[in-house]
Formats: sequence, structure tokens, C-alpha cells
Amino acid sequence: MSEKVYIFDTTLRDGEQSPGASMNTEEKLEIARQLVRLGVDVIEAGFPISSPGDFESVRRIGAEVGDAAVVCGLSRAVIKDIDVAADALSTAKRPRIHTGIGVSESHLRDKLRISEDEAVERAVAAVKHARGLVGDVEFYAEDAGRANPEFVYRMIAAVVAAGATVVNIPDTTGYSIPAEFGALIAGVKEHVPGIDDVTISVHCHNDLGMATANTLAAVAAGARQAECTINGLGERAGNTAMEEVVMAIRQRGTLLGDVRTDINTREFVRTSRLVSSITGIRVQPNKAIVGANAFAHSSGIHQDGVLKERSTYEIIDPADVGAGGSEIVLTARSGRHALRHRLEELGYTLPDEEFERVHTAFLELADKKKEVYDEDLEALVGESERTLNEIYHLEQVQFTGGEPGIPTATVELVARDGEHVIDSSHGTGPVDAVYKAINRIVDVPNDLSEFSVQAVTHGIDALGEVTIRVTSEDGQVFTGRGAHSDIIVASAKAYTNALNRLLVSKEQAGGVSAT
Amino acid sequence: MSEKVYIFDTTLRDGEQSPGASMNTEEKLEIARQLVRLGVDVIEAGFPISSPGDFESVRRIGAEVGDAAVVCGLSRAVIKDIDVAADALSTAKRPRIHTGIGVSESHLRDKLRISEDEAVERAVAAVKHARGLVGDVEFYAEDAGRANPEFVYRMIAAVVAAGATVVNIPDTTGYSIPAEFGALIAGVKEHVPGIDDVTISVHCHNDLGMATANTLAAVAAGARQAECTINGLGERAGNTAMEEVVMAIRQRGTLLGDVRTDINTREFVRTSRLVSSITGIRVQPNKAIVGANAFAHSSGIHQDGVLKERSTYEIIDPADVGAGGSEIVLTARSGRHALRHRLEELGYTLPDEEFERVHTAFLELADKKKEVYDEDLEALVGESERTLNEIYHLEQVQFTGGEPGIPTATVELVARDGEHVIDSSHGTGPVDAVYKAINRIVDVPNDLSEFSVQAVTHGIDALGEVTIRVTSEDGQVFTGRGAHSDIIVASAKAYTNALNRLLVSKEQAGGVSAT
Repeated sequence: MSEKVYIFDTTLRDGEQSPGASMNTEEKLEIARQLVRLGVDVIEAGFPISSPGDFESVRRIGAEVGDAAVVCGLSRAVIKDIDVAADALSTAKRPRIHTGIGVSESHLRDKLRISEDEAVERAVAAVKHARGLVGDVEFYAEDAGRANPEFVYRMIAAVVAAGATVVNIPDTTGYSIPAEFGALIAGVKEHVPGIDDVTISVHCHNDLGMATANTLAAVAAGARQAECTINGLGERAGNTAMEEVVMAIRQRGTLLGDVRTDINTREFVRTSRLVSSITGIRVQPNKAIVGANAFAHSSGIHQDGVLKERSTYEIIDPADVGAGGSEIVLTARSGRHALRHRLEELGYTLPDEEFERVHTAFLELADKKKEVYDEDLEALVGESERTLNEIYHLEQVQFTGGEPGIPTATVELVARDGEHVIDSSHGTGPVDAVYKAINRIVDVPNDLSEFSVQAVTHGIDALGEVTIRVTSEDGQVFTGRGAHSDIIVASAKAYTNALNRLLVSKEQAGGVSAT
Repeated sequence: MSEKVYIFDTTLRDGEQSPGASMNTEEKLEIARQLVRLGVDVIEAGFPISSPGDFESVRRIGAEVGDAAVVCGLSRAVIKDIDVAADALSTAKRPRIHTGIGVSESHLRDKLRISEDEAVERAVAAVKHARGLVGDVEFYAEDAGRANPEFVYRMIAAVVAAGATVVNIPDTTGYSIPAEFGALIAGVKEHVPGIDDVTISVHCHNDLGMATANTLAAVAAGARQAECTINGLGERAGNTAMEEVVMAIRQRGTLLGDVRTDINTREFVRTSRLVSSITGIRVQPNKAIVGANAFAHSSGIHQDGVLKERSTYEIIDPADVGAGGSEIVLTARSGRHALRHRLEELGYTLPDEEFERVHTAFLELADKKKEVYDEDLEALVGESERTLNEIYHLEQVQFTGGEPGIPTATVELVARDGEHVIDSSHGTGPVDAVYKAINRIVDVPNDLSEFSVQAVTHGIDALGEVTIRVTSEDGQVFTGRGAHSDIIVASAKAYTNALNRLLVSKEQAGGVSAT
């Protein structure tokens, strides 16, 4: 009988810490719903004390998820943090508080400036306090990968005695190699009294490209919870990629001590696309499991001229991770019912008003394109959601350009109070001209730090999805997205979207208000 | 005294097998020159028998590289392959023939349809034949990761006795986990007579996300050559990423048996950008070592409010891999000398005629943008190289569009015989309109399978680089790139570039010729 490895998703907490990946509550809820479909065991929904937005997200996700998964909130080993986390988790049916403290010499000395004894004392107090509020408390020993193992054992023993139900041994800086990290987990298992009554969790980072291998080495040594993110999203080189760990356990679980997970792997590709679309952080084509080429063999020359069995070069059936896509294609003649049905199959149950917006956009697109694919629909739903709560709405855009020529654009925006404003500008290209025209209307300082366009589907008439990131004066990064069959229009939408987010953030901070 | 691990780069051979990554000879030479700067020990330059283009690339790279590295050509365990490889390598000062055969049950049974005895016989004959032509012969035991270890030992023993100087144990399908793969290498070391007189090499794939960890496990077990690609480029989920293996050895080498490499790690970011730009295959932001966020910490909320030492969360100094970029910025007033000097520092020594083209393009760009960055220069050089040997040249493009509106474009192309052709079209967006107008002139069936735009530098006036891939009627994929401050013009250039490549390929195959 195989043993289960619990899958703890932290896309919404540690993943969100990627530069430019910050999400609003609606976007987090959309991902949380998909994580439930994927069958994760624990959703780390945020760090409640860090901001009112995070607090609200944890509350809403807790209410939404219900029985389907444990919902977890992060905190430092600080009473106030823990109280706020417990408060945010009051909506959750299966709440877990995640609290912890640094254990490496570097973290104790440079970051916390406390002794080992003080660290243990704080950790024990935090765990006891948290256990007074919820029944399920996970403790993290930050930077354990670089810590003195003897101190890790001592710390873990203390928090287990204090009532922790799960103990998380993270390789915070992505410094470990598998044999070393596996040995650390084996050491915890051997030296910590009472360890068999709690779950050992691991949380790895990918700075040297070994997060997946370190996680599996830990599982082989007895860890039974793996913390990971979709697409390996996360600060720096990211966290452990869930899709890699789960598929490796599926394919090679017997070699890791006969383990399994309960993940519905057929949801991986869809989950990956959703996270990539919402955060604007793309997955490279040669990414394991979910990259566009993960199952693509070299077209062109088949160099050895031998007719191959699929298994000769392929160890995973693409259908097992949901790759290959559906063959269902809608057209202008598909009708409302077919559209609603397909959206529901894709996991979108839209309120009537939003369905109407998507339907109108669908008809416009179907008019221009012969065939509308699932990816197009996903982009249209995203586009529709972005028009909610706008401070400025893009009403019209018009442009001309060429080489030789002077790219010129005119835009019309509608402010929240109903005022229509038109302005125009030239630029180095039509996108620049559009941006400058918008800047003349929305007068807020910002710096464009990233601009990319992706065709959502195939064909030269494809819908284009533009992602841009702007940096505000105070250094905050805001992501904007826009989808349209005309990439200049999509760019205008994306820029307006990013500026709206910037303005909302300023308003919440008590700054400007839109006219 | 630390032992050296040799770095064998196969970006130009196995990396090129990625769908859409095929490169022409000039592009391969440009990468080969950068690999020399990076200090790799072996460059696998191609598979000479596979195509005349590959043959020519291996010849030219052999001549170019000289003493600086071993140049290697791939072959099957087939006499004709080996003869052609030796012929292509005749220009190389330090030639190596790489030959081999499948050793897993799946490869023997389904692909080769031969017995174990026959496989050994062919392998021995191939190695002996190759050793009659060059002094340095590497043998690969394809799919060793899934093979019966006893048969791997037998095969390796036979080829070592036959004169192989390097034996390559590949995990062809990316199926292995580190403990298992390390044990296979330890087994080879223990069971193969004469193994201490040859170099053990490993070649891993990343299907389960463990190529780097498997390679390092093999190094710890005694492998002394690591085969890898820049950015982990390669079929499916790609090959082992060189930057990860080399930096892991640098940071953790003492734990792997006190090993080192002789790579100049400060060239990693530049090499990564060059390969990404030439192949059009992007690196995701959260890619270890060379991703845009690899050293980026979460901006926005600094959640624990503690002033941090850099080392608290960072295990590699970004400058050690060439991240962070130079601060040198050129402007319209910089002059020819400054431009030539900066290009040379970036590694581009251009012939006069090409320098003139780049200089003109630089002035045009500097006129539009205030500051021209290194990345802009790299894009301009690439752009200039692409205009060589064109069948159709893009002379003018003009477009208009908007929402609401009907995107419309007019293009003027000049054919090789000097004829100017103008046509126009409308489309779903300006890119589609431009493409349709070009298609009316260049009447060759094709399907656009990918379209993406990246801002080369920061700011809303940035140069945009467009990558597109088209698929011809016979299923071949051609990549086109174009850079311009106007992304619609860049798209027109990219599409023209892709069609030129498609037409050249057809001509070489005896197909159409342009008017």
C-alpha cells in the first residue's frame, strides 16, 4: 500500500512574491478554484498581516474552498501576526496557521540578531499561541538548508513538543544538493523525539536548478508534504514546480519509498496556463511537463530514419497532464448555448452580466476569425474581468504608422465620472504613440519595465495577448494585460489596465483620485 | 587539488533539435565564437550526415575554433555516418567523432530491432573505424538511463577495449532520479575494465526536471565530462542547462568530490541572451541563473521589515554570471568610433560593409530613442545579419488601424531581380493585414505557428524584437526575426525573414525560385 505525499500549494503566497506577479483578490480566487479542481491538499492563501489585500484574500479563499482543502495563512513567530492570521482564517473550514523563524547562522545573526536560545523560545511561544487559536499549526525553520543540522533538530524537537502538527524544513536560498538535503531530513527523522507523530514538510527553491530533486530526496528520506508552486513561480529562480514533483512521484514513486499523491494530473496544463495568464509570467517552451515543447519532438529531420515507438523517446503520456488540448472549436454560428456550455467545461461559471460581455466579445472575434479556440475564450474571459472597477476605460483608439513614416495615435478614455477625454501623440512606434497619448490624459509618472506579446492561438489572425509591467515612482510594479486581435489595441488595453491598478493602489494609500 | 569537470556544449546539435530552433551556418558560427569566449572544452557542432547544412556548419566551426576547443561531430554506429563526420571535421585542429547506439530494451527492440550481441558488435566496429580516422572518439550508449545496468557495463567495456577515449552514459528520456543515476555511474566505474583510462561523460534530459541534479550525482560518482546546452535548450523539456551545472559545481564543488570547471561564468548572461535571440526560444523569468528574475527579490512589501544582509537570501553574486549589465549607454552624439569600440567589447568585429549598415540603423534608432543600450546594439547587429542573402527585401510598409476600425496595410517588397512589388490588404489587426499583404506578393503556402514580441530594452520607446515561426506545407518550421522601434514594422521584417528562409530551403531542395 503506497503512502500519500501531501501537496501544499504556495502559488498564492510565495509564488506571488515574484517581481510583477502580484494578484488581486478576484485573480487569487480564480486560481484557488482551479487548485481545488487540481486536488491540492493545502492552499497557502497569503500572509494576512502583510497587507489588507492579503488579509481579504485569505478570508475570501477560506470561505470559497470549504472542505475541499486545508487553507493556510503565513505569519512570523510574532503574536500579532498569528492573531491576524487566525482572524483571516476564521472563514475557513480547515484552517492552518503557518508560523516560523530563521535557523541558519546567517538569519540569526544578520536578519534577526538573536541567539539560538532566543530563537527557540520565540518559536515555542508562537506555536503554543497558534495552537490556542487553531488545531493545525505548521512551523517553518527558515533557511534550514544552510543551518547547522544539530540546531535544526533542537528547534524542531522544541516545536513538536509545543504542539506543531507539521514541521517544514525549507531550503530557502536554493543552496542544497539532493544527497545533502535528503540526509538533513533523515537526520530530523532520526534525532527528533515525537517526529513520527507529525508530518515533515519541505519547501525548496530553485537557485541552482535542483528544487525538484531536493524535494524528491526529502520524500525518499521520509518527508510527506511537498510545498510547491504552479510553473515553479516564485522569487528569484522560483519555488519547486508542483507539476515536476507530482509527475516524478507518479512515474518513479516506487523508487522513492512507494509513495503517491492524490493530484488530478490532467488539470496541470490548464492550471499552468491560468497562472501564467494571470501573473503575466510566461513558461519557457522547454519547461518540463507544462512547456509548449515538453512533448514536442524535433520536427524536420528525423535523423536516424527509424520508425519509432512512442515510448522510445517519451516517458509520459501527454494526455495525463492535459496537454494536447481539446478539439472543440466554436464559430460565429455556435450560439449562446454552445458558448456557455464550453465556458462551463473550461471551469468558468459566469454571472449573467459578465457572460453577456464575453458573448459580445466572442461574436466580434468570431466575426474576424473563422475559429475560436479554448485559449481564445480564456483570454476573452480574462479581458472581461479586467474591465471591472476601472478608473479609466479605453473607449476608442486609432493609429497609423510605417517605415518610412511617423507613427501617430489618438485615444479616447472615459473617466469614472463619465467624462470623455481625447488626446493624440506620435512616438517611435504605434505602441509608443498610444502610450504617450494615454499618458497625456492619465497624468501619473511611471516607467514601462516590460512589454511582451503572445499569440494566444495559431494562425496569422490570432488573438494577441499583451502583458506590460510599469513601475511607479515609489518602485512598485504593476502588471497590465489586454487581449485583442489587433496587438496595438491590446497594448492600449494592457497599458490602461496597468495604470488603473497603479491608480487604485495610490487611492488605497490615500493618494490621487481620478477625475 | 580539485579535479576538472570538462564542459561539453551541445547547443548547436541537441539544442538545435528543439522545434523551431534550427539555425543557419552564420548563426551557429556566432554562437560557437561565444562558446569559445565562455571557455567550453568541447563544442558539438552538428550531425554531419543529417544535412548539407549541418555538414557545412561542422566544417566552418572546426576552422573557426582552432585550438580553443575540441570540435565534435555526431554519428550513428554506421560506417557512412562516421566517414562523413570525419570529412566534416577535417578542418578542426582537435576533432572528435561522437558515435553510438541504443542500449535500452526499448531501443534495441523497437527502434533498432537487433539483439544485444549485434548491438555490441556494431558499436565495436564503429569505434574501431572512427579511431582509424581521428584520435579522439566518444561513444554514447543511448537511453542508458532506462537500460539494464549489466548490459551497459558490457557495452562500455567493449567500446573501451575498442579504443573509445570518452564514454557517454546518457539519460536520453529524462527518466532517472539522482540516486539511481549516480549509482549507474558508480557501477560503470566499478565494473568496466580500463574505465580509469577514459573519461566518463553524462548527457541528461530534463523531462522530470532533474537533469542538473542527475548530472551532479554522476559527477559525484566519478563522471568528468558534463554534456549540456545554454538555457537548457533541447527537444521536449530540453537538455541539462550548462549555467546550472557550472554554477552548482562552483558553489558546491567540494561536496561533489572537490571538482571545478574552467568556464568563465561572467559570460553566462550574454551567452544566454545570444542563444535566446538567435533561436527565438525565450528563457522564463524564473529560470535559475539566467532568468530575468534569477537575482530579483520581491519588490513591494518587504514582509518581515528587517534590514537584510545580501547573503541572507542570495547564494550567488549576480556579477559572477554577468548579470546586471553594463552601464554604458550610447546616444546620437556618440560617433562611429564609440560605436565600433562598444561593438567590439560586445564581441562583434564587423566587416566594413556590415558596420556601415549597423551604423546607419544605430543613427536612426538614436534619433528616435534618447539612449541606446547594449541590448539594442545586439538586436541591430542581428537585424543587419538577417538582411544578407534575401530573396525578398522589405522596402516600405504602411498601416492604419484601431478600435473601432478596419486594420489595413500596404507593403512594398523588392525581389532579388530588382522588381518592386506593392500590394495591400486588411486583416484582423495590423500584423494580420501586413502578413496578408506580403502573402499576396510572396505566394507560398504557410501557416503561422508562433508570434511573440519582446521589448529589447526598457522604456516605452524601446526597440521591439518580433519572433515568428511559420510551418511550410511539408511540415518544416522556419523562424523569422525582426527588430524595430515600431513592432508592426518589426513584424513585417520578421515575416519576410521567415519567408526568405522557407524559400531558400525550397530552392535548395530544387523547388520554387523567386521572380
